[in-house]
Amino acid sequence: MLSPIRWQNNKLQLLDQRVLPLREKWLSYEKACDVATAIQNMVVRGAPAIGITAGYAMALSTIQHKNYKNKQKKIRQDLNILKKSRPTAYNLFWALQQYEHFIDTNNFSLQDYLSKAIKIHQDDIKNNLKMGKIGEKYIQKNDGILTHCNAGALATGGFGTALGVIRAAHNNNKIKKIYADETRPWLQGSRLTAWELAHDNIKCCVITDNTAAHLIREKKVQWIIVGADRITANADVINKIGTYNLAVLAKFHKIGFMVVAPTSTIDKNLKKGTDVQIEKRRADEILNFGEKKITNKNYDTYNVVFDVTPAKLVDVLVTEKEAIENPNFNKINEL
Amino acid sequence: MLSPIRWQNNKLQLLDQRVLPLREKWLSYEKACDVATAIQNMVVRGAPAIGITAGYAMALSTIQHKNYKNKQKKIRQDLNILKKSRPTAYNLFWALQQYEHFIDTNNFSLQDYLSKAIKIHQDDIKNNLKMGKIGEKYIQKNDGILTHCNAGALATGGFGTALGVIRAAHNNNKIKKIYADETRPWLQGSRLTAWELAHDNIKCCVITDNTAAHLIREKKVQWIIVGADRITANADVINKIGTYNLAVLAKFHKIGFMVVAPTSTIDKNLKKGTDVQIEKRRADEILNFGEKKITNKNYDTYNVVFDVTPAKLVDVLVTEKEAIENPNFNKINEL
Repeated sequence: MLSPIRWQNNKLQLLDQRVLPLREKWLSYEKACDVATAIQNMVVRGAPAIGITAGYAMALSTIQHKNYKNKQKKIRQDLNILKKSRPTAYNLFWALQQYEHFIDTNNFSLQDYLSKAIKIHQDDIKNNLKMGKIGEKYIQKNDGILTHCNAGALATGGFGTALGVIRAAHNNNKIKKIYADETRPWLQGSRLTAWELAHDNIKCCVITDNTAAHLIREKKVQWIIVGADRITANADVINKIGTYNLAVLAKFHKIGFMVVAPTSTIDKNLKKGTDVQIEKRRADEILNFGEKKITNKNYDTYNVVFDVTPAKLVDVLVTEKEAIENPNFNKINEL
Repeated sequence: MLSPIRWQNNKLQLLDQRVLPLREKWLSYEKACDVATAIQNMVVRGAPAIGITAGYAMALSTIQHKNYKNKQKKIRQDLNILKKSRPTAYNLFWALQQYEHFIDTNNFSLQDYLSKAIKIHQDDIKNNLKMGKIGEKYIQKNDGILTHCNAGALATGGFGTALGVIRAAHNNNKIKKIYADETRPWLQGSRLTAWELAHDNIKCCVITDNTAAHLIREKKVQWIIVGADRITANADVINKIGTYNLAVLAKFHKIGFMVVAPTSTIDKNLKKGTDVQIEKRRADEILNFGEKKITNKNYDTYNVVFDVTPAKLVDVLVTEKEAIENPNFNKINEL
């Protein structure tokens, strides 16, 4: 199974998602702080994948500091650096939180840290397979599906959240056509989703983000299926910029809008979506493509990379526990 | 006044919009068939600018064939080649139609052909200035404005349609902030709109197309203002892909949606928007950026470059004659 994260010879290897699909390049990490930089620079991205990566980074931290006198200080420092690597995806904090007790109790065993990381990784894959089964039941024969960003194997431990449901529905021969928004500015759709589906011999059709409405009007899409970076207590969904736009289009055209995310993405401590810190990134992500200049670099931009979809626009939230139709505070609370 | 089209020494010069803003390069044309290729390749684009360009191309045709025996055949051939250069923008057909009578009556006078082209060009600028005045009345002090694609000086004879209204409102100090959708795949927003506004010392902020919904939800936009490539008898609007998306967002969020287009864009012979031929362009516009590969070239794409906005989503259609609120068949018919 395709996974963007692997542990080998006490090193963490990440598939560099900045250069996919033109290059398939693995980078190797020995220090937690370098992993934090990799998360920040989007070598690895996708909420569940970031959480898993942070777990392995904590294991690296115990190796790096094994001969250090004040391990507690150093390892806690690494945890805090990792916590600050990106602000929006909840799985990062959820994963790191599981190491707090180790640090508090002076447990710095590589075995324990690594086991936990592997468990986070394996559980994520298991959850994705479960969500695939639960979510695909909503898909009817010959449905057209639109997805945004990459909520696939590359964004998770493997199989994917939104793409997990799409994979499962594809395996049951239900899908007429899969459309992938290219997802500006980082092009997770045309670079990552198209690549990982092609890797599994699943065809998809890449569109610009602004084509979705036209496609839906042409009745080519019955379900929009996306992942999530964070879900708040009231079931608001924080996900890649453009998700809210799609949710509005789904409501306006009366087609289905499905969010697929493990419970590790749910942040019950935050009341509502607008309480979440939405990351703003650099202007050059819009004004350049990679090293290639697109336009003048002095133009002003507004590069917010996530948006908030209010719960009332979500038809079904698929978790590894169950599918929640018309999710709200009470249903999330009972989960 | 900035204009992307100029006639000099019996040659037509076009500002190459494919390489703006990184290069300001003028290309010179002596043959109508080469101008048709330039239109097809988007050296010049924007419905009114294409119409003006076609007029000058007809003048070139009389020069090229002045010593040719069967001028009528050759010049009609050029007209037909120009007609096929792009299928959607109506101004192309509207402008060329004005030369049919000359050809039918064996009039091949450069003077007449050129005068007509200059009149089309000058009238377009005049109309834009009129529409600027008419449209800007709808803008309130401190409104935020979002525009899509480039419906500015570069898309017209000068001043612009949508950007004409925005320029006029800016000159009256009404606008709080102008947002420009980058407009994938061709990036008319981040390349052309940002450049021509900067040229006139007007600030704007570039966003990815999928950020519009979030911006509107944040109440930063009160009016969405766009141009049009064709308007049908029932007031449906055919414009750059993504326009329909914005119209849905405007309706959903109860903000204004304004279309600015001269009557030369109105095609009373077509009943409704879905009757218009929507141009599909090459996959590499999505999979590449210019010469730069973004992703694997074998991925499937759906690169429709226009969409249809039904009249019922248009709050006001601004023409050089008047502003039509809630446009429909009867109001267009009476225009």
